[in-house]
Amino acid sequence: MHPNLTPDLALADRLFAALRARGFDGVGITRPAYGPGEQAAHDLCRAEAEALGLEIATDPAGNLLMTLPGTDRAAPRLLLGSHLDSVAQGGEFDGAAGVLAGLAVLGGLVRAGFAPRADITVLAIRAEEAGAWFPTSYPGSRAALGRLPEEALAVPRLDTGRSLAAHMREAGFDPDAVRAGAHLLPPEGIAAYLELHIEQGPVLDSQEIPLGIVTGIPGSRRLRAGRVVGEYNHSGATPRRYRRDAAIALAELACQLDDAWARLETQGHHLVVTFCELATTDQAGFTKIAGEAHFQLDVRSVDPASVDAVFAELHRLVPLIEARRGVRFDLGPETGSVPSPMDPALRARLAGIADGLGIAWRAMASGGGHDAAAFAQAGVPAAMLFVRNQNGSHSPAEAMRREDFAAACQVMARWAAEAAG
Amino acid sequence: MHPNLTPDLALADRLFAALRARGFDGVGITRPAYGPGEQAAHDLCRAEAEALGLEIATDPAGNLLMTLPGTDRAAPRLLLGSHLDSVAQGGEFDGAAGVLAGLAVLGGLVRAGFAPRADITVLAIRAEEAGAWFPTSYPGSRAALGRLPEEALAVPRLDTGRSLAAHMREAGFDPDAVRAGAHLLPPEGIAAYLELHIEQGPVLDSQEIPLGIVTGIPGSRRLRAGRVVGEYNHSGATPRRYRRDAAIALAELACQLDDAWARLETQGHHLVVTFCELATTDQAGFTKIAGEAHFQLDVRSVDPASVDAVFAELHRLVPLIEARRGVRFDLGPETGSVPSPMDPALRARLAGIADGLGIAWRAMASGGGHDAAAFAQAGVPAAMLFVRNQNGSHSPAEAMRREDFAAACQVMARWAAEAAG
Repeated sequence: MHPNLTPDLALADRLFAALRARGFDGVGITRPAYGPGEQAAHDLCRAEAEALGLEIATDPAGNLLMTLPGTDRAAPRLLLGSHLDSVAQGGEFDGAAGVLAGLAVLGGLVRAGFAPRADITVLAIRAEEAGAWFPTSYPGSRAALGRLPEEALAVPRLDTGRSLAAHMREAGFDPDAVRAGAHLLPPEGIAAYLELHIEQGPVLDSQEIPLGIVTGIPGSRRLRAGRVVGEYNHSGATPRRYRRDAAIALAELACQLDDAWARLETQGHHLVVTFCELATTDQAGFTKIAGEAHFQLDVRSVDPASVDAVFAELHRLVPLIEARRGVRFDLGPETGSVPSPMDPALRARLAGIADGLGIAWRAMASGGGHDAAAFAQAGVPAAMLFVRNQNGSHSPAEAMRREDFAAACQVMARWAAEAAG
Repeated sequence: MHPNLTPDLALADRLFAALRARGFDGVGITRPAYGPGEQAAHDLCRAEAEALGLEIATDPAGNLLMTLPGTDRAAPRLLLGSHLDSVAQGGEFDGAAGVLAGLAVLGGLVRAGFAPRADITVLAIRAEEAGAWFPTSYPGSRAALGRLPEEALAVPRLDTGRSLAAHMREAGFDPDAVRAGAHLLPPEGIAAYLELHIEQGPVLDSQEIPLGIVTGIPGSRRLRAGRVVGEYNHSGATPRRYRRDAAIALAELACQLDDAWARLETQGHHLVVTFCELATTDQAGFTKIAGEAHFQLDVRSVDPASVDAVFAELHRLVPLIEARRGVRFDLGPETGSVPSPMDPALRARLAGIADGLGIAWRAMASGGGHDAAAFAQAGVPAAMLFVRNQNGSHSPAEAMRREDFAAACQVMARWAAEAAG
């Protein structure tokens, strides 16, 4: 690799510090989608991009394009993207690391006087944290691609109850144009999408490998508003056989699905099954049997058959537990997403570059969803680099070593320079 | 039975209606211990007692004594008692039915011109609903007997956080005198304590028996503030073996203890095991594995060995689940009470009276705690009559048929007339 193509890590350092200072809420980093914190992060990145002399554009959904122009403006461009929103009280690297990596890479290219043939665009994407803000998959990147269905604009933000369209408008953007399909990134104009992201899990760290090359992004099936309805009764005076105990019925469902997960793993399935919430409702007191409980269930896998196997077990168990416990389950609406395999040729090229640089890596499925899925689903060759990180993610304790970030940026820089030609 | 001793059910009807009108909060009956609602109930009962010409006295803790004087004022008295507080959004019969039954019985005796040899006192007791207000057993009846330990006066009310002593003083009573042991009912001056109460469970109703004669009041062991501490992690990116999932660990504990309960029942134990609360904490979101959960556990039996067997299983399971799930249990402080057998001779006499009146009855253990336990523990011969009721208890749906109440009052009246001589 030409030494002049070294990523500008000082630029990334400056932006990490500025984002941390702006986004810290006393406990962790909080940048709600289409909120002022996300906008401030866009503004900070934009200022650095302007200082580098990049072309700046904002699409109708508020996604920010920061472009090093190529000599052939008609050639399909390379995208280096990720998101700048965060969960509430999250960490500083989830999302932001990918945008800052892209800027560090372009900073290195600019410093080296490198003139690519095709445009290279760093894309700062809106509203990726669906679990925290808008419960719909990747509204920012789907809007960027002109592929956001109209109904997604009506999805309410979980904390405010106001729609995506309303928040988009309040933040100064144009939901009507989004609804009409206006966008800056037609899929056919994109040669490839590469996203750097922290792993968010313990696999790389526990195996002492700095880099993951992602095989695919899982699909999911989710119950957001599951309920168990039993009957409130005196906890002392109601014998076992007269009980309709929602707490124990829910506990049984959770344990049985956990057992099913363990069985599926021994059969070679790769998946995760999580009761993110599992709770008796407030009406219960110390003198009462729980008459109601609620839960949220999240099942994910790169293989839809694995997810479906858990839901088949769920639907088998529910009537059995209802009959045995005298309760009624209301599973509520189901949401979900399809899995997105990453591009094999792109993965192979990234692996070759990592090997050439002497950077240890492993292939791995993503656990979480990422904007790369939206690009893959639009037919854009997409890939992801996972950076080893510590203390998980979606938490203030989320950590990442600078040298691991630097190694992943080196791979990204080498790939961008080669691919843009 | 002399027909003139028929209980004055019209008096009870009036009081039920007045208590319902005063105590209804829009959802159910709410009369907090030492609150204005409880006081209003005392005032309504007192007015009826005064109209009957009963002697009225209030002890330093606010318990209300309404006495039909006997011809031998030195003879140990009979007590007909229960409580007038209710849980929040409870029903109209829990507690109140026993006090109103006593007044209906005395009303019948007065109307008949019956002159007992010993005093017969209807006792309206304070603060019985320990699970709802002051988490200590029977402070009202223990104070009435001069047996309330000083530390019980410091127990905070669950909703206000202020002490029993403070609430007692605000309600116009004298916690200093209670602390000094002042009381009106020395145990040696009581010949017997009889309490009528709704069953609060489904046993009598489902077996179509109007009356229960209680064998004993269960003891309990309780965990009010149990916690499970795991680790918040990304629900997608954290494989099974790296998880420390508080939700599933708690669900496993609940299911295993439920299994243990079922096993103990097949071995002949009689007990109840309730996870009144079982919940992940608010910090969890849809994208996170639950890092913390909390629970309340209530185990009751007339036989302490049955309760201890459940806790032995709990203490066996906790380290196993901790090791398997990577979590830590914090069981918090344990509270509890010892069981109180009812007086065999008194039970036999009540059974004989019911048989004589042609009223079907069955012997049964109480499920809940009752003030009768405090009298039994003070060495007073104590017994309870359970009245068949519908829709459980501690709930606005709590119901009781007037004819069942009337039948139990008849037994009480016959017994009081005989026992007071």
